[in-house]
Amino acid sequence: MAGNTFGKIFKLNTFGESHGEAIGGVIDGCPAGLELDFEAIQNELNRRKPGQSEIVTQRKEPDVVEFLSGIFEGKTTGTPIGFLIKNANQKSKDYSHIKDVYRPSHADYTYDKKYGVRDYRGGGRSSARETACRVVAGAIAKQFISTIKINAYTSSVGDLFLEKPYQDLVFTNIESNAVRCPDDDVAEQMISKIKTIKKQGDTIGGTVTCVLQNVPIGLGEPVFDKLHAELGKAMLSINAVKGFEIGSGFCGARMLGSEHNDLFNADGTTKTNLSGGIQGGISNGMDIYFRVAFKPVATIIQKQSALDNSGNIVEMQGKGRHDPCVVPRAIPIVEAMAALVIADYFLLNKLTKI
Amino acid sequence: MAGNTFGKIFKLNTFGESHGEAIGGVIDGCPAGLELDFEAIQNELNRRKPGQSEIVTQRKEPDVVEFLSGIFEGKTTGTPIGFLIKNANQKSKDYSHIKDVYRPSHADYTYDKKYGVRDYRGGGRSSARETACRVVAGAIAKQFISTIKINAYTSSVGDLFLEKPYQDLVFTNIESNAVRCPDDDVAEQMISKIKTIKKQGDTIGGTVTCVLQNVPIGLGEPVFDKLHAELGKAMLSINAVKGFEIGSGFCGARMLGSEHNDLFNADGTTKTNLSGGIQGGISNGMDIYFRVAFKPVATIIQKQSALDNSGNIVEMQGKGRHDPCVVPRAIPIVEAMAALVIADYFLLNKLTKI
Amino acid sequence: MAGNTFGKIFKLNTFGESHGEAIGGVIDGCPAGLELDFEAIQNELNRRKPGQSEIVTQRKEPDVVEFLSGIFEGKTTGTPIGFLIKNANQKSKDYSHIKDVYRPSHADYTYDKKYGVRDYRGGGRSSARETACRVVAGAIAKQFISTIKINAYTSSVGDLFLEKPYQDLVFTNIESNAVRCPDDDVAEQMISKIKTIKKQGDTIGGTVTCVLQNVPIGLGEPVFDKLHAELGKAMLSINAVKGFEIGSGFCGARMLGSEHNDLFNADGTTKTNLSGGIQGGISNGMDIYFRVAFKPVATIIQKQSALDNSGNIVEMQGKGRHDPCVVPRAIPIVEAMAALVIADYFLLNKLTKI
Amino acid sequence: MAGNTFGKIFKLNTFGESHGEAIGGVIDGCPAGLELDFEAIQNELNRRKPGQSEIVTQRKEPDVVEFLSGIFEGKTTGTPIGFLIKNANQKSKDYSHIKDVYRPSHADYTYDKKYGVRDYRGGGRSSARETACRVVAGAIAKQFISTIKINAYTSSVGDLFLEKPYQDLVFTNIESNAVRCPDDDVAEQMISKIKTIKKQGDTIGGTVTCVLQNVPIGLGEPVFDKLHAELGKAMLSINAVKGFEIGSGFCGARMLGSEHNDLFNADGTTKTNLSGGIQGGISNGMDIYFRVAFKPVATIIQKQSALDNSGNIVEMQGKGRHDPCVVPRAIPIVEAMAALVIADYFLLNKLTKI
Repeated sequence: MAGNTFGKIFKLNTFGESHGEAIGGVIDGCPAGLELDFEAIQNELNRRKPGQSEIVTQRKEPDVVEFLSGIFEGKTTGTPIGFLIKNANQKSKDYSHIKDVYRPSHADYTYDKKYGVRDYRGGGRSSARETACRVVAGAIAKQFISTIKINAYTSSVGDLFLEKPYQDLVFTNIESNAVRCPDDDVAEQMISKIKTIKKQGDTIGGTVTCVLQNVPIGLGEPVFDKLHAELGKAMLSINAVKGFEIGSGFCGARMLGSEHNDLFNADGTTKTNLSGGIQGGISNGMDIYFRVAFKPVATIIQKQSALDNSGNIVEMQGKGRHDPCVVPRAIPIVEAMAALVIADYFLLNKLTKI
Repeated sequence: MAGNTFGKIFKLNTFGESHGEAIGGVIDGCPAGLELDFEAIQNELNRRKPGQSEIVTQRKEPDVVEFLSGIFEGKTTGTPIGFLIKNANQKSKDYSHIKDVYRPSHADYTYDKKYGVRDYRGGGRSSARETACRVVAGAIAKQFISTIKINAYTSSVGDLFLEKPYQDLVFTNIESNAVRCPDDDVAEQMISKIKTIKKQGDTIGGTVTCVLQNVPIGLGEPVFDKLHAELGKAMLSINAVKGFEIGSGFCGARMLGSEHNDLFNADGTTKTNLSGGIQGGISNGMDIYFRVAFKPVATIIQKQSALDNSGNIVEMQGKGRHDPCVVPRAIPIVEAMAALVIADYFLLNKLTKI
Repeated sequence: MAGNTFGKIFKLNTFGESHGEAIGGVIDGCPAGLELDFEAIQNELNRRKPGQSEIVTQRKEPDVVEFLSGIFEGKTTGTPIGFLIKNANQKSKDYSHIKDVYRPSHADYTYDKKYGVRDYRGGGRSSARETACRVVAGAIAKQFISTIKINAYTSSVGDLFLEKPYQDLVFTNIESNAVRCPDDDVAEQMISKIKTIKKQGDTIGGTVTCVLQNVPIGLGEPVFDKLHAELGKAMLSINAVKGFEIGSGFCGARMLGSEHNDLFNADGTTKTNLSGGIQGGISNGMDIYFRVAFKPVATIIQKQSALDNSGNIVEMQGKGRHDPCVVPRAIPIVEAMAALVIADYFLLNKLTKI
Repeated sequence: MAGNTFGKIFKLNTFGESHGEAIGGVIDGCPAGLELDFEAIQNELNRRKPGQSEIVTQRKEPDVVEFLSGIFEGKTTGTPIGFLIKNANQKSKDYSHIKDVYRPSHADYTYDKKYGVRDYRGGGRSSARETACRVVAGAIAKQFISTIKINAYTSSVGDLFLEKPYQDLVFTNIESNAVRCPDDDVAEQMISKIKTIKKQGDTIGGTVTCVLQNVPIGLGEPVFDKLHAELGKAMLSINAVKGFEIGSGFCGARMLGSEHNDLFNADGTTKTNLSGGIQGGISNGMDIYFRVAFKPVATIIQKQSALDNSGNIVEMQGKGRHDPCVVPRAIPIVEAMAALVIADYFLLNKLTKI
């Protein structure tokens, strides 16, 4: 109920504040007998971690995952997988300057009003640091559904759009540049834009496109738990996300039915795929693709007015080493959440027929 | 698990196929002591029902709700509220022509593949008819959270956009025209466009904007169950929805942090509201507003190719009285789903502090 | 949350008061493709219904189940199965005499205190009438797990015990007498005892033993959702149940480990079965057997003191046609709840291994 | 789904094997603002831990709980409370002798059949070591519902019964002896019996009685989630439990209605309390009391036959330092599970009325 659990069968329950001793989680419902590639898990964490390139935050966090249970002799045992990621710098900083201050467009104010108390150090539970736990679980989910290919990439930074459809992109290029855009020319422009923004002490938004290929037919539960509804929730639960569209998305709302309908081939595939691989909430075997909008990071290195908890408007200035654009580091998080949804619905779908 | 339940505390579990004997549901977790306005409930159903204007389907369905339990002497008793809406025409039609045919961009194919069996009459469970049950439950939820104002309206039909921000609109105008757009000039154009499309036997998409006002501070659960994540899931679960954005949405992804941050007033309100009334997944007391994209209805009255279940491409033509644009009838559904989310999170929020 | 749903995958959500228009429910998560035997379902309801013999209540309720959805051409479709049982006599009686009175050992007082309002007619939601819905769902569950044999029988009435172990009984005899005890001699004594009690206007308690045979190995989830924990909850949720024991039960608490341990045969079966077919919360393929204690029905046809809602002790006398002993009619309810648990855990167990 | 989570609102999700690196859990849904007494939490763990007296196992496990999140400046923050208990001796032993052997009346066989793999070291996940996590969460739950008094005690060891009703006992005596029986004479006999059994390398069962006092009226959800049904499930989920009875329990099944009904006093209390403080699944403000049956521990220090995973019957002998009687150490576990149920239902009950 309290919002720290994701999934129905393949479940992730996370805990941890950004400056507590550790963050971590429990993965429950992962089937037994899955041989884990631990290097691949750590690699996903490394894709997310701070300090990996000059266009992301320069904080140093090793982000090493430790597994505590549920794995024996390299394989999952069907029992819950407990894991920890220690917080490296949790005692190193002085947060007294934000103790009584609500930063604009952060969760400081709402947490304080909701709970009457908050761990103000580095955003506490509302920090995007918690997404590291999602990446751990998503990395295991990816291994469980290894025949399904999940690729996310940066499709825009501010007004700079990657105009090519995903079919024209080479996904293996995604990791070849710091901004994780598979088109090198556009990537260069994006990187340059982010550097400029960073110099200004400002931040910028962007979008991530994610493509799921080789998804089996039949994933998704009708009515309230449609596959794209759950994908949408998964994405909207990531910090800074403001929008989600699947298939034709908002463009589809401008089209005619005669344009939009995906006509069948004799083998059940469709000639077009404006549906985005999902019909009636259930996957049809075509590629699933969706787009996620991220707002600019709220912490900027410029003077801004803020509110203190006595009702005074005060001036503050972000310190520290924050991301000028969250999108490059969001790529593995989007993939992880997609993997968690697919793994969960893959299991649910085993229960559909006698 | 099977996707027919919505909500955590204030829960709706629905059942029913479009051409079975009845559709209906169970509302569980509605607190005791709520005096119900039954006319208001039926009125919401009437806003959704077919045949209410010339731009919607001309099918006749009385859509009368019957309550079977959970209400005594006009008040909720805290026990489950069972209800039924009988299907008026369930035996009147011959569906043999679609028995073995998968219509393009419908759920026929995916249901058949997933379940190995389907009730092909009128779309069965995948028909939007099930949304009538959402409207019933949403109407009760609205009464439970009656201090919160929920207004949805048509903000675009195809390329025709209502450009005014919601603050410049008079919500009491929404019901004054058939397309449910509160600006009469734009409404007229939309209606005319839909009529043209209808004559062509085609359909067209559109968007709905929804505004929640007077929402208390503190609704929303952190991390996975952020308020806008649940609203997004609620909307994406409605038939034909392809996109959702909250606050600045996809536009926010083009902005700078220095533009996007909502600076505080001394009373905790904010000068701007690009966040859309939610910070860190928790309502901050400002208006919540979001936009929902609907694709064009898949049933068109034109010849189209379809697939039969023996793997042959066949020609088919939609018959019957379908909606040329789903958006006007979707307005009460969007409001209902918003009300269900808010009622649920309102209850959850009672458990936050000692 | 509100307590009207049972099961995780194979789920039953019920509604209805004893004197409302109807009771009913939604069965969600029943796999598609199950060919239903409707006569068998109605037969289970008939086993539970009032008026079937002279030792049970003489009320007349036809208890005919109507299915509204989720079934097409005789088979389940994987969508929710909505059903109704109309209340025959709901308007026939005058309940003003208990309107303001809390009957001893009924739920009148606690419902009123909890909800601030209650449907006082015939016990409302707290009436055992709701168990008819359990029987419907259980009957479908039985058909889903048809290879598993579920047999419950009356093992005691008051101090009259059926001393034989279940292995010495012929389960096909259970339905041969009104008290549902498979030993004819003991049955006769029980029937005679119940008749005497009935004449005195009194009621009497008893126990039900239930045996599950041919259960596959592996059902049950470790730690909190052990198979016997869920069976226990299922049984304790039945009206009037005060105790549950599995395998050796309370007798096991008097034994030594050297006596109690079930030694293995080479094929994995065990020489004894004091464990009751469950080890570590997981079925081991041996018979599962448990015993359920029912208190005497609270409604007696004798003068008793009661409390009114103004705080006065008043004299009252039960009227009407109540069961002198609930156990014979509880047999199909116990079986139904067992079937629901097993069907649910059978489905869950499909998700255990890759 | 996978059985490692308990509770609906106040939730505990545990992980960990007896000989992995650590066991631990996440407590989610504990309201914010609760000032924690850490000493009291550790004290509960100490009541459960091995080696505390000569009648329990002499293993050495410090069982120190470390909290990782959800607590700030001594108070709960409403975010999930992650915690760990490190396993002291996890690498110290050689388990190769049981690697391929299924011990009788343990979960070795069923885990292996269910999951196809198991962590055989010390019972892995099926070890009662996981109950330490329940005690941690239960200790926090106790502090949350601190006005409710929860007292469990040993009411029998083998055939040795504490015959006095709980009203005649002084609960502060419970901790005064090693067996946790509040009557010193009976306690002495029990201790002596356990010592004798231990010398024989055998084990013995027993029962625990638990009394909840000062419970508010209204806890419990009708129909499937009756308060005693959830208490029953909670208790039956504890390792070695075979039976549960509430109020009059199995004795109640031998009584007449005229004897069993609890007549009211004018203030709503009842003259007798055979119901055990619960009517219709909802607490009535009277004491809740129940009894839990524990079978004898399966590990005995005598030669026994076992099965190996090649289908051979082999001879084995339990080694190590096991409990001759589990009941004394089960007391804090029973209390913890009761506290978790009550805390959860206390929160749920806040949502009952408008």
